[in-house]
Amino acid sequence: MKFKVAILGAGNVAWHLAPAIEDAGHEVTEVYARDLSSARKITERVYAAEPKDELDFSDSEAEIFILAVSDQAIPELADSVILPEGSILVHTSGAMSLDILGYSSATYTGIFYPLQSFTKSRKMEFEDVAFLLESDDEESLQKLRKLAKSLKSQYYNVRSKDRLAIHIAAVFASNFTNHMIRMSEEIMRRQGLDFEMLKPLIIEQISKALQIGAKNAQTGPASREDYETLENHHRFLDYNESFAEIYRLISQDIIDS
Amino acid sequence: MKFKVAILGAGNVAWHLAPAIEDAGHEVTEVYARDLSSARKITERVYAAEPKDELDFSDSEAEIFILAVSDQAIPELADSVILPEGSILVHTSGAMSLDILGYSSATYTGIFYPLQSFTKSRKMEFEDVAFLLESDDEESLQKLRKLAKSLKSQYYNVRSKDRLAIHIAAVFASNFTNHMIRMSEEIMRRQGLDFEMLKPLIIEQISKALQIGAKNAQTGPASREDYETLENHHRFLDYNESFAEIYRLISQDIIDS
Repeated sequence: MKFKVAILGAGNVAWHLAPAIEDAGHEVTEVYARDLSSARKITERVYAAEPKDELDFSDSEAEIFILAVSDQAIPELADSVILPEGSILVHTSGAMSLDILGYSSATYTGIFYPLQSFTKSRKMEFEDVAFLLESDDEESLQKLRKLAKSLKSQYYNVRSKDRLAIHIAAVFASNFTNHMIRMSEEIMRRQGLDFEMLKPLIIEQISKALQIGAKNAQTGPASREDYETLENHHRFLDYNESFAEIYRLISQDIIDS
Repeated sequence: MKFKVAILGAGNVAWHLAPAIEDAGHEVTEVYARDLSSARKITERVYAAEPKDELDFSDSEAEIFILAVSDQAIPELADSVILPEGSILVHTSGAMSLDILGYSSATYTGIFYPLQSFTKSRKMEFEDVAFLLESDDEESLQKLRKLAKSLKSQYYNVRSKDRLAIHIAAVFASNFTNHMIRMSEEIMRRQGLDFEMLKPLIIEQISKALQIGAKNAQTGPASREDYETLENHHRFLDYNESFAEIYRLISQDIIDS
């Protein structure tokens, strides 16, 4: 089943999603952005999509409308957009509920949330994306499943309540792990040391956590309850109050776990 | 250059190091543990090492003695062990200074710290280990370099002061990233959700951080300063005070970075 799809938004998700949808054999009909030149940056990545800066889609041939904008922008766009009869409007947010699309002109609403971290400069393989899907309409849900499947992505039916928990879990597993690495980079840089030497350790630790579970994979001074080392480390971090406090709190949570 | 090496200790590091040293063409002569049966578990992994539970090595043919024990056990063992003339005693700790070996009977002392996370149940490729080396004696340092090189490991000369910083950076990059994943596992489990769906996200995020740097790789509500989502997440975590506080603190540090 091939779909005609319109994308509203010109950020990281739209950037990667538009060509992927086309590569999967669907047609991207329009890309909307408040700013026409931003819309054009995305339409240039696909065959013949029309860039748009106004929200009247009543003549669109698209059936699925993907709202790929910031969480803050979703309600206003959803309420303002004019959609053709029978259309499905979905948003791509991990944090926003389905209800937020309730006042839109769409016949059906849903969620098409890619549980992945997108960066424009980095190629995204949609095989490595898990889509969390939701819709009150079984036929729409079926279409979203087909769209995800055609992208070779994994997909899960998830209610808004659970999606919140997954989003929070994703923040810990992704944004916060990333920030731990950033803090590590800063500690090394301050000392004039080469961060390269830590990379094999990071790769091994994460592989191990994903293979045997993070609980079994834990090592280090906190898990050994080596209070002398913890104290030495904490003292070293005196120069940065936030680092010291984060060190203390996570170490304590490892000990208590 | 082939070495005769004795290992003092029977933990995770000894477990992986003993066969690796032998595979690299050296000879493991003795393995010491307070408990003879523990020593035997390691000697069974190599050709003909003698298990020992007493610390008189005056007749040992080994030239390099590797103290692979917990940080707490290092000083007493280093002070008690009797070593042959000309021997090099090294410890494998990221946290302890070189001075701690100062009262030992070794002619030379050094540090042979594998910057890696070892788990007995998991095979370790020494190509993926960075050894941090230190010695006041240039010839000993040269031998430690050769030993590391023969294991196909990377190695860096690092002073004790810098080794402390590297150890702290390693705790953030490895133990703390692992704990973030553990917290994520717990949030998912509590909700009855499958942690599998988060794995592609974690793999992509870490790969990205190592490739373009964690600062450039950051995404998520804190880096977008999306206070509404942060507040919703924080409220969700009310059930676990420690999780809520860690969420708040790391998010703030991401915002401030």
